[in-house]
Amino acid sequence: MIQARVIGKVWSSRRVESLPRGALLEVETEGGAKMIAFDPLGCDAGEAVLVTQGSVAAGYFAGRAVPVDALIIGSIDEDK
Amino acid sequence: MIQARVIGKVWSSRRVESLPRGALLEVETEGGAKMIAFDPLGCDAGEAVLVTQGSVAAGYFAGRAVPVDALIIGSIDEDK
Amino acid sequence: MIQARVIGKVWSSRRVESLPRGALLEVETEGGAKMIAFDPLGCDAGEAVLVTQGSVAAGYFAGRAVPVDALIIGSIDEDK
Amino acid sequence: MIQARVIGKVWSSRRVESLPRGALLEVETEGGAKMIAFDPLGCDAGEAVLVTQGSVAAGYFAGRAVPVDALIIGSIDEDK
Amino acid sequence: MIQARVIGKVWSSRRVESLPRGALLEVETEGGAKMIAFDPLGCDAGEAVLVTQGSVAAGYFAGRAVPVDALIIGSIDEDK
Repeated sequence: MIQARVIGKVWSSRRVESLPRGALLEVETEGGAKMIAFDPLGCDAGEAVLVTQGSVAAGYFAGRAVPVDALIIGSIDEDK
Repeated sequence: MIQARVIGKVWSSRRVESLPRGALLEVETEGGAKMIAFDPLGCDAGEAVLVTQGSVAAGYFAGRAVPVDALIIGSIDEDK
Repeated sequence: MIQARVIGKVWSSRRVESLPRGALLEVETEGGAKMIAFDPLGCDAGEAVLVTQGSVAAGYFAGRAVPVDALIIGSIDEDK
Repeated sequence: MIQARVIGKVWSSRRVESLPRGALLEVETEGGAKMIAFDPLGCDAGEAVLVTQGSVAAGYFAGRAVPVDALIIGSIDEDK
Repeated sequence: MIQARVIGKVWSSRRVESLPRGALLEVETEGGAKMIAFDPLGCDAGEAVLVTQGSVAAGYFAGRAVPVDALIIGSIDEDK
């Protein structure tokens, strides 16, 4: 998994039908790489998150073939 | 997923039979990486798109073993 | 697999239910890349470990669809 | 998929049995990355090709578990 | 697949049970990236090898869920 920070959100009105409704968040890794991850947890901008990638991300959507290759699986606890 | 922009199109007349007919678009990520993605949505040059990669891209073609590892799953809404 | 060193640990209280309870260690590769790996072995900070990635990492959790894409599969013997 | 150019060929006499007989071509991407791809199409040196990677490459060999993670799926049409 | 050269070996006494017994070789690509690959062929230090990655590497171990994501599938013939 990678540790990343939520930096934005994207909307896609025209999309394939198998893409589930839900938040598509833009996240940035410590190294500066950016990606779009599906967020089932309702994360906020600035939040540190744990992102899983590849087919295991799609496996979260049991019983459906979902074209999601990046999924937020946790919010990382931060001492603030 | 990654956010990318459509920058071109490639044609392949000599191809394996299991590659579906359809547009093969060249896309470029913000970081400058280029790849070829299968486009089921009819995207245009210059359009911002969401690309999924790996085996979940092939999973879009239900019931067939398709050698597609990058798929455009959405057009990203842009305020213009 | 990649060779990496344990450099820390992350906690995630708010997480998807399918993420197993267990240690989530931050590891760093020789090249300086950082990632979070699930640790079934109880590794310590500073320990050299072998990390497997992708769907085979999730395959460790037999019979469950687990969103884990990086798993520590061994502690590397070091002459000290 | 990635766009690459055929730059050579490798031979491997001592190999695992599950690796199919066929050409193993060295290809180079625009970015300069090199990889070895299985070629079912009989491509020539210098030819521009489309390469798919990961488990979908192995899926081309129906009914067999084949350790191929890069496959040439098309020759790219070039105006010459 | 990638072309790499064997540069060493690692031992792991404390390991998950599903990791098969066998040589774990350190290999280096032309680009300088290093990884650990399972070696079913008995390769030597300095030998040029072909490495496959991802779930197809694990597929080599038929009937078992093995956490191996890099496998040496051939020794590359070199004119010496």
